[in-house]
Amino acid sequence: MAKAAEPPSGTRDFLADDVRRRKAAFDTVSAVFERYGFDPLETPAFERLEVFAGKLGDDASALIFKILKRGVHEASGEADLALRYDHTVPLARVMGTYGSKLPSPYKRYAIGPVWRADRPAQGRFREFVQCDLDTVGSSSPLADAETLWAINDALIALGVADFRFLVNSRQALHGLLEAYGIPEEAGTKVLGSLDKLDKATPDAVIAELADRGLATETAESLVGDVIATDTDRIRKQLDTTERGRAGLAEVDKLVELTAGLPSGRVVFTPRMVRGLDYYTGPIFEVTAAGYPGSISSGGRYDGLVAKLGGPDMPACGGSIGLERILAGQAAADAEAAGLDVALTVLGAEDEVLRLANRLRAQGLRTGVYLGTSGKLARQLKWANDQRARTVLIYGPAEQEAGEVTVRDMTSGEQTRVPVDDVPAHLQR
Amino acid sequence: MAKAAEPPSGTRDFLADDVRRRKAAFDTVSAVFERYGFDPLETPAFERLEVFAGKLGDDASALIFKILKRGVHEASGEADLALRYDHTVPLARVMGTYGSKLPSPYKRYAIGPVWRADRPAQGRFREFVQCDLDTVGSSSPLADAETLWAINDALIALGVADFRFLVNSRQALHGLLEAYGIPEEAGTKVLGSLDKLDKATPDAVIAELADRGLATETAESLVGDVIATDTDRIRKQLDTTERGRAGLAEVDKLVELTAGLPSGRVVFTPRMVRGLDYYTGPIFEVTAAGYPGSISSGGRYDGLVAKLGGPDMPACGGSIGLERILAGQAAADAEAAGLDVALTVLGAEDEVLRLANRLRAQGLRTGVYLGTSGKLARQLKWANDQRARTVLIYGPAEQEAGEVTVRDMTSGEQTRVPVDDVPAHLQR
Repeated sequence: MAKAAEPPSGTRDFLADDVRRRKAAFDTVSAVFERYGFDPLETPAFERLEVFAGKLGDDASALIFKILKRGVHEASGEADLALRYDHTVPLARVMGTYGSKLPSPYKRYAIGPVWRADRPAQGRFREFVQCDLDTVGSSSPLADAETLWAINDALIALGVADFRFLVNSRQALHGLLEAYGIPEEAGTKVLGSLDKLDKATPDAVIAELADRGLATETAESLVGDVIATDTDRIRKQLDTTERGRAGLAEVDKLVELTAGLPSGRVVFTPRMVRGLDYYTGPIFEVTAAGYPGSISSGGRYDGLVAKLGGPDMPACGGSIGLERILAGQAAADAEAAGLDVALTVLGAEDEVLRLANRLRAQGLRTGVYLGTSGKLARQLKWANDQRARTVLIYGPAEQEAGEVTVRDMTSGEQTRVPVDDVPAHLQR
Repeated sequence: MAKAAEPPSGTRDFLADDVRRRKAAFDTVSAVFERYGFDPLETPAFERLEVFAGKLGDDASALIFKILKRGVHEASGEADLALRYDHTVPLARVMGTYGSKLPSPYKRYAIGPVWRADRPAQGRFREFVQCDLDTVGSSSPLADAETLWAINDALIALGVADFRFLVNSRQALHGLLEAYGIPEEAGTKVLGSLDKLDKATPDAVIAELADRGLATETAESLVGDVIATDTDRIRKQLDTTERGRAGLAEVDKLVELTAGLPSGRVVFTPRMVRGLDYYTGPIFEVTAAGYPGSISSGGRYDGLVAKLGGPDMPACGGSIGLERILAGQAAADAEAAGLDVALTVLGAEDEVLRLANRLRAQGLRTGVYLGTSGKLARQLKWANDQRARTVLIYGPAEQEAGEVTVRDMTSGEQTRVPVDDVPAHLQR
């Protein structure tokens, strides 16, 4: 394959079956979010460059696709627009654009592509769909709980069977650091080390914490507490500081408000940190049997909308890793959509088209042979390539008798049916 | 509104009701195209710059959004990628990428955004949805006819009531020029003048043709023939040249193969030219009562796929002006989606959430009050803002009685219903 003929590095063409499978997944998730009263939002593929500039960290900024100025300004080599990097920055912009015209609180979902100039790798693309739902303008714990409920229902609707919400609280994490006498400035790095406990061994993390200047005893005790199955140990620690108690109360409220979910679905997980430091309250992550890493995550991020240039409003939300889920299911449902009916063309073209359109009118996916061969065998091969379930043959003999030969492509069985009865015959 | 808060010039944010209305239209059209055996195709939002370079005319090339190289190459001010300008160039690229892996002929539709750095104006955007269907690899007139049938059904499904296909043939047009002794090199300009006959008066067009060097008598005769209601005059002219006869045969075949459509739906329109000169065979345009200009167009373009860098294959297709149709209908269906049920929160939060989720499970769009006020009046105002049809009140008195007050927001009528009976009560 010549390089020029490939889609650009890190992007994909989606042919028929892929488009259908992806669309079905997006529609499934939308339908769930709609039931929860979330509204869809679609922003342009690009924003003014300044909407992103300074709003993302350096690492993220390097991944932005920038659009060159146009016309006489093209020669300057400068950019003024940037492709959408995520759905959160546009959401903050929209809060500023429409303000009080939006429902309050504003509950919205966005399912659409974002673009990042990341190094392409297995499962990592430069154009991929992000699926976000957020509630802006509510500080109620009900909003946090609704996020989990809605994601729970969406994952079930997507066919993800065995999954758990790991929940924690940023406040609890800060309280934890206080309880262990870890200075504020060392906090981010220590939390970063704890976050590795899902992959690394406790000993490796203890060693890393020691490298970061913690007394070995403190490191051992901290790691021991956060991975203990019995959370009473950590609860005791958290109870010693104000922030710890506030964080614990957040976690307990979230667990209480999701008590209607199957037992074991929502689990207080003290070691769970979430990489992004803009979270301010409860946080969660979803792990599922058969999928690597997490397939969903989110939390409360009360200061973020203002930081991104929007009004100062409390907010919480979450994101579903649809691409990861779709990739995990690719092998499972490789079933493809063929034609319901294929019509051969052996003369009488207008009658064939008219019959085809009667079948289409009753919802059957119907194809007509558009090639040049007048040979039935060649046309049957085409029908077979189209994965047609039924083939209609309307040759000279059939035309004379006013009948159509209906061939079942699975059994090979053939029946002669009067032309006018074909739609009813196939309806069955 | 601060400029920084607006979406970029020529683009739009789509809030809830707009997204729903647009998605419904796209799904409607997709469903029709699927019935005709067309496959969906989604290509990336951008292609390598060289895929577009030299493939479009100068006017179009100036409208391409170019993406700056990334990382260390950003400083060069050079671009290597371009946002999708249309769906045709990517289709030609895909024919080259997948070749024989695609069905033959390849019937595909594409409904998705394209980007053009045009000067924004009323109804002209820099990001807008194009809706194309094309058949690549068939020279059969059945393929041309199927395009019209599919577009016919799609327009009806979209609620466009009163429309006509104006059909002509590029071959017929060339034959016409020959018949009138107009030299080949003057042809494009003469056809350009004739194309104005839908807006300008015949006299104005005759004058323009005279300016272009035609004898006044020839100009009068030509214009008279192409606008005559009785097409016999033009048929006689076309019959005098080989290309004219071939073109006439194309038109007649298309009319014959669409005879199943309502009478008067497909009309031979000798003056109809279509601006783009890549068409090689039958061409069409759709005009509809209540919509300005044409709402759909297309034709056969046998040489184009090769010219755009794909394999040399015959092709035909058409495009539906979905944005224009949606704009024309905007006023008509302003009906908006509110909540089916709004739940107030006056304590017992977990019970409220659980009830909400039972209602969601039966498909009702259900919202829970997420604000901070404990006052019923304030919460009812929220429910009203959400355009809720029904409000559920679960205050202290109701909680004690194990009942819910169900308030019909249209009539104002209130009923007390046992908590467990609420889902069944609302199902009605």
